[in-house]
Amino acid sequence: MIKVGIAGASGYTGVELVKLISNHPKATLCAVTSNSYKGQSLTNIFPSLRGFKKAGFENLICEDLNISSLSQRIDVMFLALPHKVSMKVVPALLEHNIKIIDLSADYRFTNAAAYESAYQKHTSKHLLKKSVYGLSEIYRDKIKTSNLVGNPGCYPTSILLPLIPLLKEGLIRPDNIISDSKSGVSGAGRSLSPSTHFCEVNESFNAYKIGNHRHTPEINEVLSKYSRQGKIAITFVPHLLPLTRGMLSTIYVQAANNVSENEIRNTYLSYYGDEPFVKILDKNMYPAISHVKGTNSCDIGFHFDKTSHQIIIVSAIDNLIKGAAGQAVQNMNILFDLDEKTGLNLVQGPL
Amino acid sequence: MIKVGIAGASGYTGVELVKLISNHPKATLCAVTSNSYKGQSLTNIFPSLRGFKKAGFENLICEDLNISSLSQRIDVMFLALPHKVSMKVVPALLEHNIKIIDLSADYRFTNAAAYESAYQKHTSKHLLKKSVYGLSEIYRDKIKTSNLVGNPGCYPTSILLPLIPLLKEGLIRPDNIISDSKSGVSGAGRSLSPSTHFCEVNESFNAYKIGNHRHTPEINEVLSKYSRQGKIAITFVPHLLPLTRGMLSTIYVQAANNVSENEIRNTYLSYYGDEPFVKILDKNMYPAISHVKGTNSCDIGFHFDKTSHQIIIVSAIDNLIKGAAGQAVQNMNILFDLDEKTGLNLVQGPL
Amino acid sequence: MIKVGIAGASGYTGVELVKLISNHPKATLCAVTSNSYKGQSLTNIFPSLRGFKKAGFENLICEDLNISSLSQRIDVMFLALPHKVSMKVVPALLEHNIKIIDLSADYRFTNAAAYESAYQKHTSKHLLKKSVYGLSEIYRDKIKTSNLVGNPGCYPTSILLPLIPLLKEGLIRPDNIISDSKSGVSGAGRSLSPSTHFCEVNESFNAYKIGNHRHTPEINEVLSKYSRQGKIAITFVPHLLPLTRGMLSTIYVQAANNVSENEIRNTYLSYYGDEPFVKILDKNMYPAISHVKGTNSCDIGFHFDKTSHQIIIVSAIDNLIKGAAGQAVQNMNILFDLDEKTGLNLVQGPL
Amino acid sequence: MIKVGIAGASGYTGVELVKLISNHPKATLCAVTSNSYKGQSLTNIFPSLRGFKKAGFENLICEDLNISSLSQRIDVMFLALPHKVSMKVVPALLEHNIKIIDLSADYRFTNAAAYESAYQKHTSKHLLKKSVYGLSEIYRDKIKTSNLVGNPGCYPTSILLPLIPLLKEGLIRPDNIISDSKSGVSGAGRSLSPSTHFCEVNESFNAYKIGNHRHTPEINEVLSKYSRQGKIAITFVPHLLPLTRGMLSTIYVQAANNVSENEIRNTYLSYYGDEPFVKILDKNMYPAISHVKGTNSCDIGFHFDKTSHQIIIVSAIDNLIKGAAGQAVQNMNILFDLDEKTGLNLVQGPL
Repeated sequence: MIKVGIAGASGYTGVELVKLISNHPKATLCAVTSNSYKGQSLTNIFPSLRGFKKAGFENLICEDLNISSLSQRIDVMFLALPHKVSMKVVPALLEHNIKIIDLSADYRFTNAAAYESAYQKHTSKHLLKKSVYGLSEIYRDKIKTSNLVGNPGCYPTSILLPLIPLLKEGLIRPDNIISDSKSGVSGAGRSLSPSTHFCEVNESFNAYKIGNHRHTPEINEVLSKYSRQGKIAITFVPHLLPLTRGMLSTIYVQAANNVSENEIRNTYLSYYGDEPFVKILDKNMYPAISHVKGTNSCDIGFHFDKTSHQIIIVSAIDNLIKGAAGQAVQNMNILFDLDEKTGLNLVQGPL
Repeated sequence: MIKVGIAGASGYTGVELVKLISNHPKATLCAVTSNSYKGQSLTNIFPSLRGFKKAGFENLICEDLNISSLSQRIDVMFLALPHKVSMKVVPALLEHNIKIIDLSADYRFTNAAAYESAYQKHTSKHLLKKSVYGLSEIYRDKIKTSNLVGNPGCYPTSILLPLIPLLKEGLIRPDNIISDSKSGVSGAGRSLSPSTHFCEVNESFNAYKIGNHRHTPEINEVLSKYSRQGKIAITFVPHLLPLTRGMLSTIYVQAANNVSENEIRNTYLSYYGDEPFVKILDKNMYPAISHVKGTNSCDIGFHFDKTSHQIIIVSAIDNLIKGAAGQAVQNMNILFDLDEKTGLNLVQGPL
Repeated sequence: MIKVGIAGASGYTGVELVKLISNHPKATLCAVTSNSYKGQSLTNIFPSLRGFKKAGFENLICEDLNISSLSQRIDVMFLALPHKVSMKVVPALLEHNIKIIDLSADYRFTNAAAYESAYQKHTSKHLLKKSVYGLSEIYRDKIKTSNLVGNPGCYPTSILLPLIPLLKEGLIRPDNIISDSKSGVSGAGRSLSPSTHFCEVNESFNAYKIGNHRHTPEINEVLSKYSRQGKIAITFVPHLLPLTRGMLSTIYVQAANNVSENEIRNTYLSYYGDEPFVKILDKNMYPAISHVKGTNSCDIGFHFDKTSHQIIIVSAIDNLIKGAAGQAVQNMNILFDLDEKTGLNLVQGPL
Repeated sequence: MIKVGIAGASGYTGVELVKLISNHPKATLCAVTSNSYKGQSLTNIFPSLRGFKKAGFENLICEDLNISSLSQRIDVMFLALPHKVSMKVVPALLEHNIKIIDLSADYRFTNAAAYESAYQKHTSKHLLKKSVYGLSEIYRDKIKTSNLVGNPGCYPTSILLPLIPLLKEGLIRPDNIISDSKSGVSGAGRSLSPSTHFCEVNESFNAYKIGNHRHTPEINEVLSKYSRQGKIAITFVPHLLPLTRGMLSTIYVQAANNVSENEIRNTYLSYYGDEPFVKILDKNMYPAISHVKGTNSCDIGFHFDKTSHQIIIVSAIDNLIKGAAGQAVQNMNILFDLDEKTGLNLVQGPL
């Protein structure tokens, strides 16, 4: 059994990891940390966890992030921490030979300057060369041999999975890529703010951070690696949906000259046809958040307009699973040489 | 492996059964029937089931309810059918030695007259003596030896589990029992009606069928078995919540003379302290729908007013799981002598 | 034109008052105060108010609650302030001959001890004799001659309006009155708390403050005035609905001996048949939150069980209007001898 | 007083018209028709209308669409009818000198072929020359002298208002215009369908009718009139939001050469600075559905990217008001030479 620690277990991503690891047949949850709930049991923080005696949540007490103590008890650490906090603990964890899957942005970038322009000064730049971007389907070979995974952001996951194959194969033009993305409220986390007050969100909808969302440089850095014509600067507009979990991106791109609908479909199928967690939908079928909620799936549908050569791609994920905790567990499975589906292939109903 | 058939698989209860059986380690889904979607695959009806290749949903085609054909392939049949439709097929299924868990009301009653007053003429009254009421925690011994289980209604489950111990032990007065119950919209099923139109339900709330809900005689018949002072006539008022799944009952009863809070708590603990799917909450803790959603748990909290001797009991369940499909699977586990938790003890997060 | 000031204009009740006064044909909004948004314009705080040039919101700047300054400019002050804060300013406002409609609990009670047991020490007890409880339909004669109105709580309004006529006429027993009440989230106000975080409330439902909600003594004090048999101690259980505005109370009472359904209906009609803001629904019709949302109406329906003599009463209001700002404006209309409907009788659609 | 008839009063748009006309100081509702609720009173269909005695809803009985009877009693008829049904009655209504505001698509098009490609054969093509497209701010001069207004679709309103000024002034390129639009469920009307079932919509989100929504030719026809470089073929992708009312469009266009942010802002202000129902938001401010819900306003905000010359425009309306009934009343005000704001400028709060 893999011995797992989760730092930041009292946040929404943290508790989603708690759930997935508890249901994982080859992993055991051995330690949880929380800054705000130190000394409290998980069942105290999350009553929905009550009564799973087997899982032993009653005895899982949120502790300090004490690395020397933790390192005795765990093989792998998930960091569901705010940006900047991860940087403070990753170097020491690595010294103790703990494998790390960091869900903050701190180790997602190759280029420290790009990170620093969007976040803050990076205090362990040398590790950016060692860390691997945890977009499982694309980077699984590198992940396999790594011990530090920078788990992708939720918006980037929903945008990169559909775009990378088309870009890499030269099927779309690298300029003028637009992603109109919509996220549920859980993406904003569990801390309190006017923008997560029920009465402000319910029955409303709006765009936010137009032109300056921190996920834009993350998306651009990865996409640019697959561009045949220089750097990519995507237009990315996030919106807030009045629902708890789920994310949908509607992506507008121009096909390269002479590209046909079949080529697009075949490319998608050659990349993802055998992937358990990426589904390419049939023609005229499009994803819905309700089809992926509670799963680790990224559903992708597209429409090709022969006249304008425009491709409209729609992708949907559960922001807390494929967009965070689920992909993190998928990466753990890769790191430990398990079948990637382990613990992630439960059937989910429509409601 | 138990070979399972599900009749009425295209409804909300039906597909919840599909999900639970698919995730069950000791059962295989062998046949599904649907009147409205005959000939269609489950993935066509419910896109959220797409891509679970292991589960083989792509090949599960909704068929007719042809008993002689089905009986070759299954050990147990779940009937997620409308009332009256179950009655038509149960006798024949029994003749083919198929075990039956009927989620309609047709075999929930002992007294045919009570059934007929609330529903319609019963066409196989003789089977009411053989059928067992499937309230798992209370009737598991009888269920074990049965081959026809009348799975309880959702409202009755949320009301009977907290009331039976107190009534049986004589801790409460049998008159003037009130249950103010609230259900999510999935309880109304998947068929179209003005009362399930999004715009009519959303941002609203109302009581309905005051004084004449069909679950009242079901509750009364069962409760009366535990009354020491004649028949019980509960006051039951159902309400419709603007949410998809979950049910909460707030129950008002009078304590019998000289009963103390401790006696109530101890009675609950002696009945349910070891039950995996009934949780008695600590003093001053009360259930919430979010704590049970997605689980087979019935959470129960209570408040005892020393002055007035009134007991306010709050119970919460997921109407589609403990209130329908989950309890049905729990009953299957009992019928087949499995650990009751099998397939039902996945950890659920708070969102 | 009545010159109006609103203290606490940046809360949900405050801004509802801003809306109602702005749409009122005989009143002008002259001053608004806010502790948290001092110096900011209302349009800055509430973008939905933008662009109503006539209303002049752009020029309404939230100021300090400076009584000598305000008293020059206004005839009446609405206090949408937290409990305790009202007490601090009411005596001085009265000295300046400003009429006051206080939406906090500070002047709702006749009995200071009852107030103090639920809230805190009262610093102007002598005014409790002068203040009038602002349940408009019941106390309009007293309100007419008053200058200090203690505007009722939302839960009490939904419970007292249906109960007072029956109690006063001796049609129901004064013991064992139960109100199972449900409120939308706006009732919890605009300040941030885990219990108003979208993800915690959405798709959930729960009871809270069982046995110790502050509205209980308020309800009991008023009801007891109409009891023929001593003090009334209601059983009141509030619940939180996953919707923004609206409140519904399901009330369970026992009819007195020999009372008939017709007597109940006729009593209701004699009390409320001519009231513009209380609707007695026809037999078998019950209120829904969607029927009163956005209006100053209290809808009341009831079911009488001949066998058990139990009466089930359902009442619905918009917690922010009849439960707060609307009733406050109705009281202003009474204070200034206007038709009570002035500014409150706009037609509201179903959505 | 203007004597008003509303055909199709039992739909969501119809009842919104009922509400607006009832609150309108210069109009009286004289007749309502409904196919499904013939002979029933409006209060029977919509309980929220109960008790407005002044408005007389109790006496407003849904009648047949009998033109010779209706024409005796009304000056203007709003047609809130399905496409094709309007065509059948408009010619006769015109013969009776009734002014018509048609909320179906039947008289929105200039080009009959464009209409017929999206809908069905047009049976009164000659009237298309006489009808005026009812986008109030743009066509008010023509509307003033007309007697047949084709009231715009909701999506077109949210897209055309922000685009026409920029296109007409040559500030944007006419190719590659994208509108990613999101609508609340009330846009789908009151009839029952799986896509409006609460459980299917709630907690979900999806795109629909990609590449073939009927509003696309309507948008294209109008936009093309303002293009300096031939016909416009917009990319329009509608999405369904899990909320009742409101619509938001995020529009992506390329600025023409050398256009500055100031030019765009100034153009908007010169077109709309004095409009009561179009608000141009300050830099870095963007609309939200909660800011326009319940109002006749179209809020517009934009972001200009200097590097890429891309303009991201966000517009928000209430789909039932500015997107349907409100704009229809605005057009009635124009037709009858009233101040356009009459009956439409009530202040709306944030909730």
